[in-house]
Amino acid sequence: MIMIKQPKTIAFQGEPGAFSELAARKLLGESVKTVAFSWFDKVFQAVMSGKVDAAMVPIENTLHGSVHENYDHLLKNELEIVAETQIRIVHNLMAPPGVSFKQIKRVYSHPVALSQCLDFFAANPQFQRETFYDTAGSAKKVMQDNATDAAAIASEYAAQLYGAKILKRAIEDDKANFTRFFLLYRPKAKFHHPEGDQWKTSVVFAAKNQPGALYRAMSAFSLRDLNLTKIESRPLRGKPFEYMFYLDFLGKASDPVSQRALAHLAEFADFSRVLGTYPRGR
Amino acid sequence: MIMIKQPKTIAFQGEPGAFSELAARKLLGESVKTVAFSWFDKVFQAVMSGKVDAAMVPIENTLHGSVHENYDHLLKNELEIVAETQIRIVHNLMAPPGVSFKQIKRVYSHPVALSQCLDFFAANPQFQRETFYDTAGSAKKVMQDNATDAAAIASEYAAQLYGAKILKRAIEDDKANFTRFFLLYRPKAKFHHPEGDQWKTSVVFAAKNQPGALYRAMSAFSLRDLNLTKIESRPLRGKPFEYMFYLDFLGKASDPVSQRALAHLAEFADFSRVLGTYPRGR
Repeated sequence: MIMIKQPKTIAFQGEPGAFSELAARKLLGESVKTVAFSWFDKVFQAVMSGKVDAAMVPIENTLHGSVHENYDHLLKNELEIVAETQIRIVHNLMAPPGVSFKQIKRVYSHPVALSQCLDFFAANPQFQRETFYDTAGSAKKVMQDNATDAAAIASEYAAQLYGAKILKRAIEDDKANFTRFFLLYRPKAKFHHPEGDQWKTSVVFAAKNQPGALYRAMSAFSLRDLNLTKIESRPLRGKPFEYMFYLDFLGKASDPVSQRALAHLAEFADFSRVLGTYPRGR
Repeated sequence: MIMIKQPKTIAFQGEPGAFSELAARKLLGESVKTVAFSWFDKVFQAVMSGKVDAAMVPIENTLHGSVHENYDHLLKNELEIVAETQIRIVHNLMAPPGVSFKQIKRVYSHPVALSQCLDFFAANPQFQRETFYDTAGSAKKVMQDNATDAAAIASEYAAQLYGAKILKRAIEDDKANFTRFFLLYRPKAKFHHPEGDQWKTSVVFAAKNQPGALYRAMSAFSLRDLNLTKIESRPLRGKPFEYMFYLDFLGKASDPVSQRALAHLAEFADFSRVLGTYPRGR
């Protein structure tokens, strides 16, 4: 757990019980005050306006990839990444108490969660998949509807929160299903990190319109033995051969070697920006 | 349009009128027979089993990023990419004829489409966003419900198909909103390409667990002046510092220089596979 000076309010997207709320509690402790918003743009607005102190947002999932929408919001809103954490995504089938597995005809959840339980649906072709707003919201829905033929796929925490009974645990296809979350603050907000952690820095940059531009930009890190933990291109449409890149490397942005690498990168990029530097999540 | 010898049946995910169906018609002509499936796994199964000849699936969107689920299906099912195409995603607000903009209280669409119209929702805070299965499906729904207070966000083609009236065109935040689609065949299926096209090759590989492994793997292409049009890392969880990469380069896989680059890549990768080689989409 990361040390903070005073209790904070943390915005997240989804219904109470969402994985983002779990991530906030994992990183900041059970007593943190979380505030639910339906959409990511509202989450970012809430931090920018000072309505809440910080936000916890998913940035990538091992199976589903990067959440580009949140990278866009990060670039637009100038919030700073101050911490990262990872949550193992465990999907559970749940229904109101008293409803048995055999009664289930429809299964509600977020489309991403449904698409991560394909083996389960292949083994149970009697289930109709129904998309819903979010995972925790689908648990809330089947409980509110007092459904006798419908179930939801959500976290164990959502089952506890809404009083649903878990009929089958861990129905996800791939147990290596993790989501990485960023804790975001307004720039220069105070956040205390423990000493001795390994650090990570997240950068976004646009490569110059030249062959091999990315290779040259990456040499900024490889020549200095700075390990990359993420690289991802994103096409800039209307500009053929031009791309934006998301890059994470192991190192603290203020370290001299990182400073030199970032200066080297800036030399070979049209644009570059550090999104944040933070201790590597466990 | 790409030449094919005989008419083909093409599987796609979503309701009739989905952007994947538009992509199939753009690439193969208006007379192609398209078959709708609710889920991507069913689309891949339909091609593997021979129920249909090919599939058209989205692989990345300029705003939303890669569709990792389809990369997973590609690796699992051994289908081959034989063509790519891009569709400009235009989102339109539509409702049953006779319903006016002022009557609208709820707006249905796929969560990705809703998240791509944030400026529209910010300008119209009276609208409640409601997630739905897919864009075309939401158009079908408001027409079937004969809704008087609900609208859908979908393509112009979906509006025509279901008889909805477009109340506001092109409400997407970013006009540079394109989705890239792959046409997939069973391995060795015949597909005729016109001469003289510029080619692209898609590769997936896992980098060795060594610092700078990606840089070394990428030199396979940069040393030979082969331009990359995509590079994306995907963490292999449970294996810290190990990643899978999606890489596209300009060149035909059977060209001697591509062959040498692919051999060089294989030398520095734990695993590599060519997913397909195909003319570059316009």
